[in-house]
Amino acid sequence: MTETAASTINADTVRAVRETAQRAKTASIQLSRASSGSKNDMLLSIASALESAAAEIVAANEDDMARGRERGMSDGLLDRLQLTKERVATIAEALRDVADLPDPVGEVVRGSTLENGLRLRQLRVPMGVVGMIYEARPNVTVDAAGLALKSGNAVILRGGSAAMSTNRAIVQVMQDALVAEGYSASLVQTIDEYGREGGVALMQARGLVDLLVPRGGAALIQTVVLESKVPVIETGTGNVHIYVDESADIEKALPIILNAKTQRVGVCNAVETLLVHEGIADKFVPLVTAALTEQGVTVHADDVTQQLSADSATTAATDADWETEYLSLDIAAKVVPSIDTAIEHIRRYTTGHTEVIVTESLAAANQFTDEVDAAVVMVNASSRFTDGAEFGLGAELGISTQKLHARGPMGLAELTTTKWIVEGNGQVRP
Amino acid sequence: MTETAASTINADTVRAVRETAQRAKTASIQLSRASSGSKNDMLLSIASALESAAAEIVAANEDDMARGRERGMSDGLLDRLQLTKERVATIAEALRDVADLPDPVGEVVRGSTLENGLRLRQLRVPMGVVGMIYEARPNVTVDAAGLALKSGNAVILRGGSAAMSTNRAIVQVMQDALVAEGYSASLVQTIDEYGREGGVALMQARGLVDLLVPRGGAALIQTVVLESKVPVIETGTGNVHIYVDESADIEKALPIILNAKTQRVGVCNAVETLLVHEGIADKFVPLVTAALTEQGVTVHADDVTQQLSADSATTAATDADWETEYLSLDIAAKVVPSIDTAIEHIRRYTTGHTEVIVTESLAAANQFTDEVDAAVVMVNASSRFTDGAEFGLGAELGISTQKLHARGPMGLAELTTTKWIVEGNGQVRP
Repeated sequence: MTETAASTINADTVRAVRETAQRAKTASIQLSRASSGSKNDMLLSIASALESAAAEIVAANEDDMARGRERGMSDGLLDRLQLTKERVATIAEALRDVADLPDPVGEVVRGSTLENGLRLRQLRVPMGVVGMIYEARPNVTVDAAGLALKSGNAVILRGGSAAMSTNRAIVQVMQDALVAEGYSASLVQTIDEYGREGGVALMQARGLVDLLVPRGGAALIQTVVLESKVPVIETGTGNVHIYVDESADIEKALPIILNAKTQRVGVCNAVETLLVHEGIADKFVPLVTAALTEQGVTVHADDVTQQLSADSATTAATDADWETEYLSLDIAAKVVPSIDTAIEHIRRYTTGHTEVIVTESLAAANQFTDEVDAAVVMVNASSRFTDGAEFGLGAELGISTQKLHARGPMGLAELTTTKWIVEGNGQVRP
Repeated sequence: MTETAASTINADTVRAVRETAQRAKTASIQLSRASSGSKNDMLLSIASALESAAAEIVAANEDDMARGRERGMSDGLLDRLQLTKERVATIAEALRDVADLPDPVGEVVRGSTLENGLRLRQLRVPMGVVGMIYEARPNVTVDAAGLALKSGNAVILRGGSAAMSTNRAIVQVMQDALVAEGYSASLVQTIDEYGREGGVALMQARGLVDLLVPRGGAALIQTVVLESKVPVIETGTGNVHIYVDESADIEKALPIILNAKTQRVGVCNAVETLLVHEGIADKFVPLVTAALTEQGVTVHADDVTQQLSADSATTAATDADWETEYLSLDIAAKVVPSIDTAIEHIRRYTTGHTEVIVTESLAAANQFTDEVDAAVVMVNASSRFTDGAEFGLGAELGISTQKLHARGPMGLAELTTTKWIVEGNGQVRP
């Protein structure tokens, strides 16, 4: 997408995407007033429709898979792209979970009665039209639509072109179910047919699209964040650090690090850099590098870590390692002279996602949670817990690493805005 | 600013502004941990320092005023630029009011203990570095700095060049007071010396500046919103409508409209368009046009309104009138066949600031508040009440007309973000 400048895109594409957005906006007005019960029925209906259409969705997916294999797509990407009947059932089940979540729309956030008798209340209301730009993961198509619909929004989807047939089939099923429930088909639309230019046109549709959420690799997200004229929420880049303090309990530190690195690879809440206080390094570094290498993790180590890991094979770290989000079985490791140095290092390289300290010192825990600036700061727990479902917020659209509007796991409430209602009896301002 | 493209700005300016932002970021870390008491003492100190330095501030302002007169600045703009000893005292008093407000930093927004024993809490924390781009109004220099400091943020100010001498004097006084209180002078900095290019460089300083708030005319705001790579909150464009329903009480409607148009001109919460239901138009239109014209208001009227206002001088409205934010003693007026048409008109022309219905019908009030999408929707009250102080939120940085992060009057809480703190005892994800 980086090469496609806004000025060079086809006028027909711009027009088509704007028309799509206009239809979405109109449809969102109807949905914004729907009751929670009606929205939940609609989600359950879509879930059943997806299950009933599993065979045709899987068939469409096989086309995408075949094209992917022809083009030499990696096994990891092919796995994310693939749908089976079981996976369709899991996706449908996730929609039912969304139906079960409380409806954020209509919640009174603040309110008061003023001295002059004006009654004020600030209500949660839907954003309106939410755009999603993401990669070839068909489950995101349904997850994003479900969260958007439940929070009263229309959604415009721009998925990876590698999943185009699958997404077309899924969106068709969702649209048919929407219409059967008395809703507009324009509540869920895809612009995949316009390719990359469609994504660019979506980013330009200020005034028609209220929020754009990019989900995928760092390059995709940066392009959207820097190019979009529509408000964006930046998600999911996680150069996550774990700092093992001098006072750390090694029995906690080891499992936390192994879990954070290996429980699932390629996710934004996996750890990427390990910082160890020099006061515990002699004891801890040999243990952790041995445990990591045994699990198949390549340790990119600074000099001190390499010396202390004599029995394990490590790789010499370069400056680039400190800023790399590996998303693989790799970890950078460094011994630091103090908690202040650790915090300094994190401040320099953090992407603002999740940062962890392992410590038994209350003072160190407090200093770390006070001074580290990230969406989530953890004490003695695996960074893998940064997740909407784990936090008890229900499904999530992504993890926001920006400071505006949403920070951390983005659930239903983050897909809403607010509106002040002021009721009077003829009051004027003196 | 529109003509200054990012690619053409001087590299020295970019470097200087980035260094300014880096200093602000470093200083903001110290402030983020300051106690409310210490921040309040610092604000009171700045207030006293401004009063003590009133003579030199007024002297600096006289330079700006002289230059303004030479350049033929309008009386209205000169009035906004002018500082007197009394105005300096008022500005200092506003700082003391900010000191009196509750500190949003540290507030626990949400929290829970999970089944696995993890303790979660989501805290309000400062944004970090807030940039302000505004016009030649020296009071904004102090107001913005006060709100930013109270909420734990460093601020970078880019004021109108017409107020450059005044702002330089004010910032110097504030910096001296900061240092005297043991804080860094870099908490309040101006980049006025770099002119328009400085503003552009500030908009490019993503990663160093956390939030940019433009405050001023629509052109300034649009430029910042469309060009900035730093997250922006759009403020203050108010094409405000008042819809007088068929069931309206004329005794309420008349004073509300007169107040909303004439109590203060040139403000974003003043009314710009009047919509009258045809069922009450015969009775109401002659009264309201007479009352408005008597107050010196030019009524830009549609055909029906003109016919019904035979006794008052009205001007024929053109299509442009419906989208004009006059900010003057002008109002557009139209007779509509129904509340639906009124809502349709508002939907088309609203800037999402404040929209008002005057009605005695509960059904009409509910329909209007449900269906109109704006930061503030009012029933039977003057739009002039859309204001942070009037809402009881304390001072405001501006009125957000966007949906992301803040909507409506922006107070201290809107200058903060949140951080999740997760405390465990060695938990790992199964």
